[in-house]
Amino acid sequence: MGKARMRIKIPTAITGPLASVEDDTKQWLALASPGTEVQVVPVHAKGPETIESIYDAAFYGPSLLEEIKTAEEQGFDAVIVPCMADPGLHAGREIASIPVVGTAESSFLLAIALGHRFSELEPTREGLALTRQLLLMYEFEKFVASLRVLGLSVEEIRSGDKGAVKQAILREGRKAVEEDGADVIVLGCTFMAGIAEEASEQLGVPVIDPLAAAMGFAEMLVRLGLSHSKEAYMTPSPKKMT
Amino acid sequence: MGKARMRIKIPTAITGPLASVEDDTKQWLALASPGTEVQVVPVHAKGPETIESIYDAAFYGPSLLEEIKTAEEQGFDAVIVPCMADPGLHAGREIASIPVVGTAESSFLLAIALGHRFSELEPTREGLALTRQLLLMYEFEKFVASLRVLGLSVEEIRSGDKGAVKQAILREGRKAVEEDGADVIVLGCTFMAGIAEEASEQLGVPVIDPLAAAMGFAEMLVRLGLSHSKEAYMTPSPKKMT
Amino acid sequence: MGKARMRIKIPTAITGPLASVEDDTKQWLALASPGTEVQVVPVHAKGPETIESIYDAAFYGPSLLEEIKTAEEQGFDAVIVPCMADPGLHAGREIASIPVVGTAESSFLLAIALGHRFSELEPTREGLALTRQLLLMYEFEKFVASLRVLGLSVEEIRSGDKGAVKQAILREGRKAVEEDGADVIVLGCTFMAGIAEEASEQLGVPVIDPLAAAMGFAEMLVRLGLSHSKEAYMTPSPKKMT
Amino acid sequence: MGKARMRIKIPTAITGPLASVEDDTKQWLALASPGTEVQVVPVHAKGPETIESIYDAAFYGPSLLEEIKTAEEQGFDAVIVPCMADPGLHAGREIASIPVVGTAESSFLLAIALGHRFSELEPTREGLALTRQLLLMYEFEKFVASLRVLGLSVEEIRSGDKGAVKQAILREGRKAVEEDGADVIVLGCTFMAGIAEEASEQLGVPVIDPLAAAMGFAEMLVRLGLSHSKEAYMTPSPKKMT
Amino acid sequence: MGKARMRIKIPTAITGPLASVEDDTKQWLALASPGTEVQVVPVHAKGPETIESIYDAAFYGPSLLEEIKTAEEQGFDAVIVPCMADPGLHAGREIASIPVVGTAESSFLLAIALGHRFSELEPTREGLALTRQLLLMYEFEKFVASLRVLGLSVEEIRSGDKGAVKQAILREGRKAVEEDGADVIVLGCTFMAGIAEEASEQLGVPVIDPLAAAMGFAEMLVRLGLSHSKEAYMTPSPKKMT
Amino acid sequence: MGKARMRIKIPTAITGPLASVEDDTKQWLALASPGTEVQVVPVHAKGPETIESIYDAAFYGPSLLEEIKTAEEQGFDAVIVPCMADPGLHAGREIASIPVVGTAESSFLLAIALGHRFSELEPTREGLALTRQLLLMYEFEKFVASLRVLGLSVEEIRSGDKGAVKQAILREGRKAVEEDGADVIVLGCTFMAGIAEEASEQLGVPVIDPLAAAMGFAEMLVRLGLSHSKEAYMTPSPKKMT
Repeated sequence: MGKARMRIKIPTAITGPLASVEDDTKQWLALASPGTEVQVVPVHAKGPETIESIYDAAFYGPSLLEEIKTAEEQGFDAVIVPCMADPGLHAGREIASIPVVGTAESSFLLAIALGHRFSELEPTREGLALTRQLLLMYEFEKFVASLRVLGLSVEEIRSGDKGAVKQAILREGRKAVEEDGADVIVLGCTFMAGIAEEASEQLGVPVIDPLAAAMGFAEMLVRLGLSHSKEAYMTPSPKKMT
Repeated sequence: MGKARMRIKIPTAITGPLASVEDDTKQWLALASPGTEVQVVPVHAKGPETIESIYDAAFYGPSLLEEIKTAEEQGFDAVIVPCMADPGLHAGREIASIPVVGTAESSFLLAIALGHRFSELEPTREGLALTRQLLLMYEFEKFVASLRVLGLSVEEIRSGDKGAVKQAILREGRKAVEEDGADVIVLGCTFMAGIAEEASEQLGVPVIDPLAAAMGFAEMLVRLGLSHSKEAYMTPSPKKMT
Repeated sequence: MGKARMRIKIPTAITGPLASVEDDTKQWLALASPGTEVQVVPVHAKGPETIESIYDAAFYGPSLLEEIKTAEEQGFDAVIVPCMADPGLHAGREIASIPVVGTAESSFLLAIALGHRFSELEPTREGLALTRQLLLMYEFEKFVASLRVLGLSVEEIRSGDKGAVKQAILREGRKAVEEDGADVIVLGCTFMAGIAEEASEQLGVPVIDPLAAAMGFAEMLVRLGLSHSKEAYMTPSPKKMT
Repeated sequence: MGKARMRIKIPTAITGPLASVEDDTKQWLALASPGTEVQVVPVHAKGPETIESIYDAAFYGPSLLEEIKTAEEQGFDAVIVPCMADPGLHAGREIASIPVVGTAESSFLLAIALGHRFSELEPTREGLALTRQLLLMYEFEKFVASLRVLGLSVEEIRSGDKGAVKQAILREGRKAVEEDGADVIVLGCTFMAGIAEEASEQLGVPVIDPLAAAMGFAEMLVRLGLSHSKEAYMTPSPKKMT
Repeated sequence: MGKARMRIKIPTAITGPLASVEDDTKQWLALASPGTEVQVVPVHAKGPETIESIYDAAFYGPSLLEEIKTAEEQGFDAVIVPCMADPGLHAGREIASIPVVGTAESSFLLAIALGHRFSELEPTREGLALTRQLLLMYEFEKFVASLRVLGLSVEEIRSGDKGAVKQAILREGRKAVEEDGADVIVLGCTFMAGIAEEASEQLGVPVIDPLAAAMGFAEMLVRLGLSHSKEAYMTPSPKKMT
Repeated sequence: MGKARMRIKIPTAITGPLASVEDDTKQWLALASPGTEVQVVPVHAKGPETIESIYDAAFYGPSLLEEIKTAEEQGFDAVIVPCMADPGLHAGREIASIPVVGTAESSFLLAIALGHRFSELEPTREGLALTRQLLLMYEFEKFVASLRVLGLSVEEIRSGDKGAVKQAILREGRKAVEEDGADVIVLGCTFMAGIAEEASEQLGVPVIDPLAAAMGFAEMLVRLGLSHSKEAYMTPSPKKMT
């Protein structure tokens, strides 16, 4: 089996003025097991401050991939990509041998493990196409009850009134359960973390915190000594760079 | 979040003369994290000594469910059902609030997390219908490359020549990868445990040990403080017993 | 071709004080062709008096299988399992060479033969998971318009006010046709028998009585001299019993 | 319930010099229950003498529909369309209230009832597109193991050496079971009737005779007093004829 | 590549008193590129004046096929079948080497190219089964948001108040977008042509005019020098005619 | 309807020393209709010289999107993204109102229009994951017979021996038709252009040249006055750039 002590690299795509490496690190450590070290690494890329569309996500690919490429050499045991767009996830697995874990994919897998049909609560309508694309790529559409929209931008969720965010989550989460047949709820933005437990009690179904889900999968894979299949994510042949 | 120290109950369906609670306990502890306690509980049922068909599996339902029903009261944090037929898994979740984890379902989820298409290596042709039924019930057929048959009964795998078992696993595993397009292999019998690591090195793809997979999922769920959705697995209404 | 005169064994899972072998036999004979004999056999098992959940159904497996195993030797031409959980259906086919027919599977097949999308009317929400599991195992989900809940327990349907049962069937059946797009209705409880014809006239679509459906399939298979494929339902290898 | 005595109309699309109403009638009566009358009605249409392609089948629609339209008025209880192209089946149900049964659809339904995956043995490659279209229209593709080609035209099967036909059926049927995973075989031409029983014994799986399957379904529906849903097959509004 | 100048044959199934070859030709030329000639050919068949059901459509097969069969010899580069039932489309491709294009299939393909989920606006409920059958045959069900009914017969759409038709299209089109999640609308009757552009502006999503779609595909295929695969649409073997 | 004269922008992702804007322009003009202007625009990005993996493709997103964003203002009627990875296609549609057409998606759509099951011929195994991802995102997996590998890198196809490329295409194309059931072949690399016509004659099925397919779709959409749905590809809200 793999190891119980481990180091996890977390290249953070959101690098606006409000992001704080120190706060992020505390949040991740609170989710980790004893013996797990985390290193939050801000990604330097020119792009939109928050990621809500397929367009927004495209800007972070190259810089994120640079961080993933160097992770193993730096002694990390796993990488977590902390964004519900899972940017660069499959590309990253092509160039890494250690597990590269995404918050969206981990949340979906956990939802499938705990129930039959899940709903994701999206910040805005704009993000629906992005989530839809991930669900198709991962072949998880069958397990989806609905995608529901909160009507709050990622920026509003990050910096706005936490009470309003909670209200929106409970309102749409309840509709997902009662009208759409969801038996698990996935929070559709990494800035919704910390609300899952209370929402779960109120809604009567498991509510998945995407950061916790990603940490859970990353630790499990390292403990089991398993990583992504190189037959599924083949190593690119070396090519001249332009 | 949930707890790092935990107690897991493992009601063992196979209760023939060769089964040994002590040996089983050692094997499970070797897969567990520090801080995890396991209790292997032999299930008393009149039925076939090994489970290879849907018919064989039907005998263990009532006794297994009795053990699952009492687990929470006895202070356990999770239950693992250690048999690739996942007997009583969904029924057990209907009467338990703690996670009830199966070796087959956990192996499938882990395979889906690590690649695109997995193959399961079955002891005998007789077991194909059982695995097929599980894959349909869990809605995982789409992720399957093939089910391949080793041609060794569960009894032969348990008590026979370990070298022959390994040969069969490598032979059929290789065909699964090269001919069927599998990028992950699931070992289809809990008695194949201990061969996964070497098989993985030889085959060049992740090979899932079902005991390790179940322990990984059980521990992750307890750590995350999550359990199966009671909307998916509703509590049966109380009824008079005949 | 097979025979026109035939004997059908009907092991009845529900063995509470209200069950009556004599009444059951009359009901079945009214559905059978001239020349068909039926023998209703009460199954002795310790379990819940009615079957509404996956948990409830697990108790009847071993005893039902005993009755199925002996049926051919006793000179029967087919077995009908009379419960909408189809308990032991696939397991029973593994150990029998004569047709083993279930009320749920027969109703679904008949619904597929008569229209494009059917709805099943379930007694309670608790039963949804059980029916969902059958539809997945039989690969019939695609043909389902909806599962609708009457809000009446099996016990209430069996012993309660027949007028209230009829009202609920017409109310939910109408919604299934008008809101869910159902063009055939399946009655989701064997105790709803006898209402199908009137409901069909009122709703304007075929309404399937599960007892009649099972009798229809059992007689057709015996007449055609056909039985379930032993490649699909392989004979379990002999094993020592614990 | 419906009736045990019944009259079935069988409009026969193949009207070449070799077709014989008298022989056909005997063949159908041998498949029917006591109490069932059959009337074979030759359909007068200008078209190809045998039906192997979608093009061939198009010629018989209008004449067949005329026979289906008049059947109920003439006192028939059901219509059987005896051709593996099921020509006019859905159109016929739109203008009839009595059951309109096809040999292909009945064979597929029976195959689904008896196993998990069936193969149809086609006379020629030319017929594959036609069968493929039916399987898509009926939404039965999921249940198909393979379509295998005998390499004998419908004319050769009808008038040629019966021994050669049997050899081809056994050869391709065996490949279907051993290589394609079929557990039921459907004979893909109504002129293969009479070989099913022997083929079944040789191949070890059920072999469906399409004429027997259609007779079985027609009789079952009449006995159960059920017909196709008018919500699925709506009555066309009256229109001026050109 | 193929040619820029081309001749397209358009055998028109609707031959009632109101049809006008001259008007039809003008309408088609307005949709064609410079350099494209069209020839509208009335099809002589005894059948219902408009096509709304599977039954109605069956009458036009043989006559349409006659026109398709002769098209290539007459020097045409492509055939368009101008009816939302796509009558004879696949049969026609079996006997033609030039492209045979249908208004329904072309509209669906264009809708799939422009969005994720389309809705078709049907004249009447009667037509739903016909469109459903096409979507299954073409394997396009997955791309459908809904089929919505205008409640106007084909005859009313052809000869009635254009304002009422437009109102119905906008009303149901809006519901398709807002309630059913459609992002493209297909007009479900060739007599709705000419409304697409305005409807598109009002609804905010592409609205497909089926005549324009068919002309677009026919011209593209001729320009690219491509035609339908003879492996998918095999040439029928020659047979004696009855 | 839209216009017959049009201007198409073609931002070329491959910017290695061997690429030639002049040659590319000639090649595109040969595929275009009279009246169509093309402008090939080299994309400046730091990345691998050829695109064969998901990793390789990630580098071109941001620069390509810049070119797509400015296209409409510059007076273009459509954009073609000329790479079988369709890089930035969905992201580009979010920020453009004119059609943004990809070579892979256009080839797939054309293949679906011409047959039932297509095979794509991939340069190397490395590229399989990329094509698989596109087919899932576009929901076209159902239409795929196989992905076959030529064993030639993109660089070898671009600069190597044309005879060897043709041999490999004919060899794998034949296997796709004869062993995998393909009835249409898609050439899986834009540098294979110019071989399609000969390959089609040799293989007896349509062979799709991806450049021709993209030009065909781009011209058709402009002519029809249609563009991608803004409900499917929503405009991203304005955000601060980091």
